[in-house]
Amino acid sequence: MANESQQQPESLKSARTAVGRIPGRGRYDREEVYRILDAGFVCHVGFSIDGQPFVIPTSYWRKEDSLYFHGSTASRMLSNLAAGAPVCVTVTHVDGLVLARSAYHHSINYRSVVILGQAVPVLDEREKVAALEAFVNSMVPGRWHDIREPNAGELKATEVLKVSIQEASAKIRTGPPLDDPEDIELGVWAGVIPLAESAGLAISAPDLRPGIKMPPAVANYKPRSAPDSATR
Amino acid sequence: MANESQQQPESLKSARTAVGRIPGRGRYDREEVYRILDAGFVCHVGFSIDGQPFVIPTSYWRKEDSLYFHGSTASRMLSNLAAGAPVCVTVTHVDGLVLARSAYHHSINYRSVVILGQAVPVLDEREKVAALEAFVNSMVPGRWHDIREPNAGELKATEVLKVSIQEASAKIRTGPPLDDPEDIELGVWAGVIPLAESAGLAISAPDLRPGIKMPPAVANYKPRSAPDSATR
Repeated sequence: MANESQQQPESLKSARTAVGRIPGRGRYDREEVYRILDAGFVCHVGFSIDGQPFVIPTSYWRKEDSLYFHGSTASRMLSNLAAGAPVCVTVTHVDGLVLARSAYHHSINYRSVVILGQAVPVLDEREKVAALEAFVNSMVPGRWHDIREPNAGELKATEVLKVSIQEASAKIRTGPPLDDPEDIELGVWAGVIPLAESAGLAISAPDLRPGIKMPPAVANYKPRSAPDSATR
Repeated sequence: MANESQQQPESLKSARTAVGRIPGRGRYDREEVYRILDAGFVCHVGFSIDGQPFVIPTSYWRKEDSLYFHGSTASRMLSNLAAGAPVCVTVTHVDGLVLARSAYHHSINYRSVVILGQAVPVLDEREKVAALEAFVNSMVPGRWHDIREPNAGELKATEVLKVSIQEASAKIRTGPPLDDPEDIELGVWAGVIPLAESAGLAISAPDLRPGIKMPPAVANYKPRSAPDSATR
């Protein structure tokens, strides 16, 4: 087929992204990886300088088969990455405390994605604006329509990087504690405390001009990070 | 004074941990760094293998001036780190979406800590048990008293690593959007959507024996990640 060469491979698994510990928790299909990515907006970016790893939190968003993040052109992290350094981007959602009868089986319910690759600067101005539009709309759907778009100076001062999602893994732990059979009889309570991100009532800026109403998408904001109800 | 040499330096700042972008957001005192660390339980650990950085989420806890994490002795990450590789441990709390009038000033309210150092395996058995006690109690206060402690085989299968907190930085963004003065007059709503971790009702394990009550510390669990009310 004509577009066959443009199709992305189904599996994102590689020797480097294969889950080593508890392989049953690993997933490598785009659908699962994208579901976890699309539920978050802060990632942890890993890179090395002179052999020292650094892990920096930053906001991100996904558009098609790339993950984007951005910042100032003066950022050490971004200039380091834009020069082609290998990068690891990790996204984690914490879903619960897993409280077992034994210390050994205490755990965390979570969903995480690890992406390996290289970050490429988005230089084309239209692509950069489209990426920033996707960023703003990932925070609050439709917000780009309401706000002032970046001017030429702001665009120049903003570095946007994208990482093609080609080599990745998802890792998921869900469900109750898994105690050793002989511990079940102990008189110890076991179970899960579910954790999730929650949003409070939006707070208008102190310098907001009178008469400006809070948009419904802000007033009704719901965090995106909740897992499917089936995974609790 | 006799114990002067044991005192920790007040500042955790170094050339490598100094906050480059927006230095006003950086903090280097133990009090602030520990406050942020003690509000969380999942960190992102960064290390490099053959020049490729990896960032792996894992549970952690602080005890005195060290940060601890643990896992299986079969873990690639832990064996790599126990061999003395440089490590970066990052903890992040997301406190809100900052919605400005301009795309450029959209931001996130957050508190994060970045620690650089080396991970040292905890080999002494008593120290290891004490560290695991601190881990379990960091999940639910007092829980260690209720559960079955690790046996010899479990202790042997568990690697506990500690990172001495000597070189670190905290970075904090808080408060409303900071728009350019000429944008204030735009008819655009601006403000903050507060975000926080919330806990649902605990779910008893399906194989829980009848008559075992949920401990009050579980039933009344409150997430620790909320910032001081003053920082919202």
